[in-house]
Amino acid sequence: MVKVGIVGGTGYTGVELLRLLAGHPEVAVTVITSRAESGRLVSDIYPNLRGHFDIPFTEPDLDVLSTCDLLFFATPNGTAMKLVPGLLERGCRVVDLAADFRIQDISVWEQWYGMRHSCPELVAEAVYGLPELNREAIRSARLVANPGCYPTATTLGFLPLVESGLVRLSGLVADCKSGVSGAGRGASVGMLMGEVGESFKAYGVPGHRHMPEIRQNLSAVANQSVGLTFVPHLLPMVRGIHSTLYATLTGEADLQALYEARFQQEPFVDVLPAGSHPETRSVRGVNHCRIAVHRPQGGDTVVVLSVIDNLVKGAAGQAIQNMNIMLGLEETLGLRAVALLP
Amino acid sequence: MVKVGIVGGTGYTGVELLRLLAGHPEVAVTVITSRAESGRLVSDIYPNLRGHFDIPFTEPDLDVLSTCDLLFFATPNGTAMKLVPGLLERGCRVVDLAADFRIQDISVWEQWYGMRHSCPELVAEAVYGLPELNREAIRSARLVANPGCYPTATTLGFLPLVESGLVRLSGLVADCKSGVSGAGRGASVGMLMGEVGESFKAYGVPGHRHMPEIRQNLSAVANQSVGLTFVPHLLPMVRGIHSTLYATLTGEADLQALYEARFQQEPFVDVLPAGSHPETRSVRGVNHCRIAVHRPQGGDTVVVLSVIDNLVKGAAGQAIQNMNIMLGLEETLGLRAVALLP
Amino acid sequence: MVKVGIVGGTGYTGVELLRLLAGHPEVAVTVITSRAESGRLVSDIYPNLRGHFDIPFTEPDLDVLSTCDLLFFATPNGTAMKLVPGLLERGCRVVDLAADFRIQDISVWEQWYGMRHSCPELVAEAVYGLPELNREAIRSARLVANPGCYPTATTLGFLPLVESGLVRLSGLVADCKSGVSGAGRGASVGMLMGEVGESFKAYGVPGHRHMPEIRQNLSAVANQSVGLTFVPHLLPMVRGIHSTLYATLTGEADLQALYEARFQQEPFVDVLPAGSHPETRSVRGVNHCRIAVHRPQGGDTVVVLSVIDNLVKGAAGQAIQNMNIMLGLEETLGLRAVALLP
Amino acid sequence: MVKVGIVGGTGYTGVELLRLLAGHPEVAVTVITSRAESGRLVSDIYPNLRGHFDIPFTEPDLDVLSTCDLLFFATPNGTAMKLVPGLLERGCRVVDLAADFRIQDISVWEQWYGMRHSCPELVAEAVYGLPELNREAIRSARLVANPGCYPTATTLGFLPLVESGLVRLSGLVADCKSGVSGAGRGASVGMLMGEVGESFKAYGVPGHRHMPEIRQNLSAVANQSVGLTFVPHLLPMVRGIHSTLYATLTGEADLQALYEARFQQEPFVDVLPAGSHPETRSVRGVNHCRIAVHRPQGGDTVVVLSVIDNLVKGAAGQAIQNMNIMLGLEETLGLRAVALLP
Repeated sequence: MVKVGIVGGTGYTGVELLRLLAGHPEVAVTVITSRAESGRLVSDIYPNLRGHFDIPFTEPDLDVLSTCDLLFFATPNGTAMKLVPGLLERGCRVVDLAADFRIQDISVWEQWYGMRHSCPELVAEAVYGLPELNREAIRSARLVANPGCYPTATTLGFLPLVESGLVRLSGLVADCKSGVSGAGRGASVGMLMGEVGESFKAYGVPGHRHMPEIRQNLSAVANQSVGLTFVPHLLPMVRGIHSTLYATLTGEADLQALYEARFQQEPFVDVLPAGSHPETRSVRGVNHCRIAVHRPQGGDTVVVLSVIDNLVKGAAGQAIQNMNIMLGLEETLGLRAVALLP
Repeated sequence: MVKVGIVGGTGYTGVELLRLLAGHPEVAVTVITSRAESGRLVSDIYPNLRGHFDIPFTEPDLDVLSTCDLLFFATPNGTAMKLVPGLLERGCRVVDLAADFRIQDISVWEQWYGMRHSCPELVAEAVYGLPELNREAIRSARLVANPGCYPTATTLGFLPLVESGLVRLSGLVADCKSGVSGAGRGASVGMLMGEVGESFKAYGVPGHRHMPEIRQNLSAVANQSVGLTFVPHLLPMVRGIHSTLYATLTGEADLQALYEARFQQEPFVDVLPAGSHPETRSVRGVNHCRIAVHRPQGGDTVVVLSVIDNLVKGAAGQAIQNMNIMLGLEETLGLRAVALLP
Repeated sequence: MVKVGIVGGTGYTGVELLRLLAGHPEVAVTVITSRAESGRLVSDIYPNLRGHFDIPFTEPDLDVLSTCDLLFFATPNGTAMKLVPGLLERGCRVVDLAADFRIQDISVWEQWYGMRHSCPELVAEAVYGLPELNREAIRSARLVANPGCYPTATTLGFLPLVESGLVRLSGLVADCKSGVSGAGRGASVGMLMGEVGESFKAYGVPGHRHMPEIRQNLSAVANQSVGLTFVPHLLPMVRGIHSTLYATLTGEADLQALYEARFQQEPFVDVLPAGSHPETRSVRGVNHCRIAVHRPQGGDTVVVLSVIDNLVKGAAGQAIQNMNIMLGLEETLGLRAVALLP
Repeated sequence: MVKVGIVGGTGYTGVELLRLLAGHPEVAVTVITSRAESGRLVSDIYPNLRGHFDIPFTEPDLDVLSTCDLLFFATPNGTAMKLVPGLLERGCRVVDLAADFRIQDISVWEQWYGMRHSCPELVAEAVYGLPELNREAIRSARLVANPGCYPTATTLGFLPLVESGLVRLSGLVADCKSGVSGAGRGASVGMLMGEVGESFKAYGVPGHRHMPEIRQNLSAVANQSVGLTFVPHLLPMVRGIHSTLYATLTGEADLQALYEARFQQEPFVDVLPAGSHPETRSVRGVNHCRIAVHRPQGGDTVVVLSVIDNLVKGAAGQAIQNMNIMLGLEETLGLRAVALLP
């Protein structure tokens, strides 16, 4: 059994890692840390884990953590960059689910995240963990930067269009909607059910941290800078992201065939039949991204619909997919359940 | 007191008309028809009306209906066009909340609604009841075509941009999200809470009936044909529409000032301060449209956020606003309540 | 116009008072206080109030507050008891929406609320503001203790049974369910939508502060101590309380007639026809309590179903009803809207 | 591999059987029938099954069905009783998820289900499939009547109290709340999200079919007739049942120890620590029943809180648990996933 640890396990990403790893046949979770809940059993906070995990949260300790082969960081932004250098030195491998290693341009990162980066050299080394883009590099990576939730759904949705050079790169639009679990489990007035239940709104329209991440991904694929408008919205539900993507065609193509070909070998990207409308619930609890591509009224605007579970393919599931690749395991191991519908 | 009747009162639009008219000081509802529920008290079906209305549903009857000064049609598409000619002849005035008189091009209407139109001459006479566009014509209209819910939120949101000629008209995008009450109260598997609760999806991407209506509105304003991509989505909540609108700027302008100036005199359009994100709940139960305009990252894409209550400004409230204008009453009469928040 | 003030206006009870008072023809809100939001416009925090109120929150100041004829306290428990003595001295009248003056037995109050009471003599003077019980005393009261939300729905539901002596008083059961707005607008992990959305649970089963309040009400009516089991639950929705009440019959009676007779004169208690099941949405936004009484299978257990909007009849609406009574106004003034359904 | 078939697979119970059986290592689903959807792939209707099942729905055919070792009936009430006799004759074993074989007293069944029973002799043979009560009999049963959802949560919750003779049997109260998926996937106005979203109500208070089933279970355990009041309510969410149970103690006992001892060996019943309040989401998607027992204020009323997922332990999961027992497999096979939280 491979020994894995989770740093910062009390948030939704932490409990989701535990939920999925409980069914993974090749991995044992030996450490889970939380400064705030140190000493409590994980199943006291998350009763769904009763009978599956009886380990307690502990204070993060480098000596203990380095007994693990691989560590997941489910910490707030800015925490992993402080601990990761020491862990890599001791031979551990790391998947960071926060944003510390996602943005290659340090000045861009520092501008959007409002802090100094403490180990820019590791950003250069880190592999951006979108397997559909970087599978080979992930295999041998010491440090994987697990993508954000919006960037996963949006990058996968735009990917075939941008790779094929079929659309105008200056005017991409990503209109994205997320369930509330994407905002995490910290106490805040804005995420009370009394505030967000039975209502809907956009947020962060002037600027959101996931915008430079998506732009970096698509610009790398296009090999030139892309122009992207990204508008996130908050859905009155718990799980799920729906990205509705708009691009202007510059040439002719069989879009359905293009998408099917691009993702044919991908175990977790499912191109729906022509004319489909994916529902977020069709991926609830699973690592799939389901995509449909439309060309309404035969015009020159392509509309792509892309759904994921923000806590699975958008976070913990993709982290485990990356771990499987890093460890040379079957990529779908521990990730074969069926989505919970209804 | 002005006598008004409601034809087809058992749907959500019907009960919403009754809810709002209960507080209208100048109007009495004297007839409400329903073939299916004829003989039952309206308050038996809608207990919120107990103590406010003790009239029964009756079979629609031209002689009875024509005792009213004004009639609201809250019927399925294709019903009003059969009864309206007779009512106009007898001197009644009509506000049709269905789509029968919304589209001026009969062939377009027949294509999208899948039936022959029985009185094209009345389509030519009908006034499209968006007061912010057609207030003067509404005053003297015999027949008002009350706008659709998506077209109301979307047309109002795009209006200042299109009127001012500041945006490229060929590539407008309207990404719209609606609560489930927009689908009405007919039994269907697709609208069960088990199907649409805790999930989100787009629908009608290949084509939706509100697209030609929005296009007609904006083309009339622009005095040229506009290119519009319209994608509706279904929200897991009951009331509210949020239109997120995208357009490409072709010139410079103070967008905030443009919007504020355009709607300064409008009692039901509220331009929020710069940087705002309107919530659908801020208009729950009321006739307002709240709008915010953004220019993310100073680029050339304008993003407009426009929210309404689909059953009020998107249906019954706007119908009463039109009625007030037709009757020479204060436009806000019966429509002055505060939105229900939270 | 009567001048009223609101002390502690940033919570859900405060905004609900403003929503309802906006439509009250005899009252003007001249002061609204909030230490945290002092200086901000109320409509900045609550955009539904835009166009209705353009007054700012201010620091609470005894001199300013005492310019009002009547003050509503929408503050946390323990605040009103500090300010009320000074206000009464200066001739103001007060409706306290918190719990400071609800429990006549000071030691019981101190045990459940965990603090010393600073003015027990005013508790003795205060009138418990359930008009259906205490209308006459409310008329001349200087200080009204507005009932809690669960106690309102539960007391009204049990009232005819307890008054008539028809049930065993030792084993009453109140199984109550509340929307999340009942928990207020303070930041907390437990009330995040990620925690309470799409889930259901009981809470406070070992003991809840509303239990002694309900017991006090029913014991006073029965003129003897009653035995009550009270179990509150949290609903995944925003507004509404449903009390399901169980009692064992000790004699025969026409329960439907009993309930109808008891509440016939009550403007805000609506006894539904036999066999009905009230929905919380049938009272959304309004001051009504709708009640149905059942005797399943003809057995000796009575089941009463009682619904209110926790923010209206359970808080702000009842406070305004009390104010109307205190001021000698028509009791339903400002409270005549129709519930928002759907 | 054991061959199993599903008769009537288009409802929520059918898709849930498929979801769970997809991960079962010893079983292959070889037939799934639906008259209405014959010829369509199951994954066309349920996109969560894409990649897991590529079999089509077929017309039910006795010859084809009898190639299976075991059949699940997920049909409307009254269907299984017509087909089961022929299948048993051909050597198949059957788990019926409908109500056809649940009630031993045929006249009671006929009264509540409003039809003649066509094979009373098989009712006598059928084993009521609550493993916590009837594990041994299930092992060798040809025909298992899978319990209803409310009866599962309620019977398990009352079981230790009734078995131990500690409570008064004449006045049991079960106040139960269910998510909407319990009502199935048939088109109906009453279950539209526009009707049941953001609202709460009781239903069936005069009488509900699950009442005689619960009464039968508890009476059998008590060896005498019990008096039960059962009130079901509809929650504005998709999955989950919460039973709040009330009983009057007639003697002293350590209730926590009683419950822990009773269910210690049960793999799917989890007694929570004293003072707990189980959430329905803690069992979302899994076969567990989580129970907490309280004695509020030290009085003589016991309050039991019991939660299940109505589609899993309340239907498909329990059916698979029964299948495992019938086939001599490990009882938890295919049922070991962790609940989806949040």
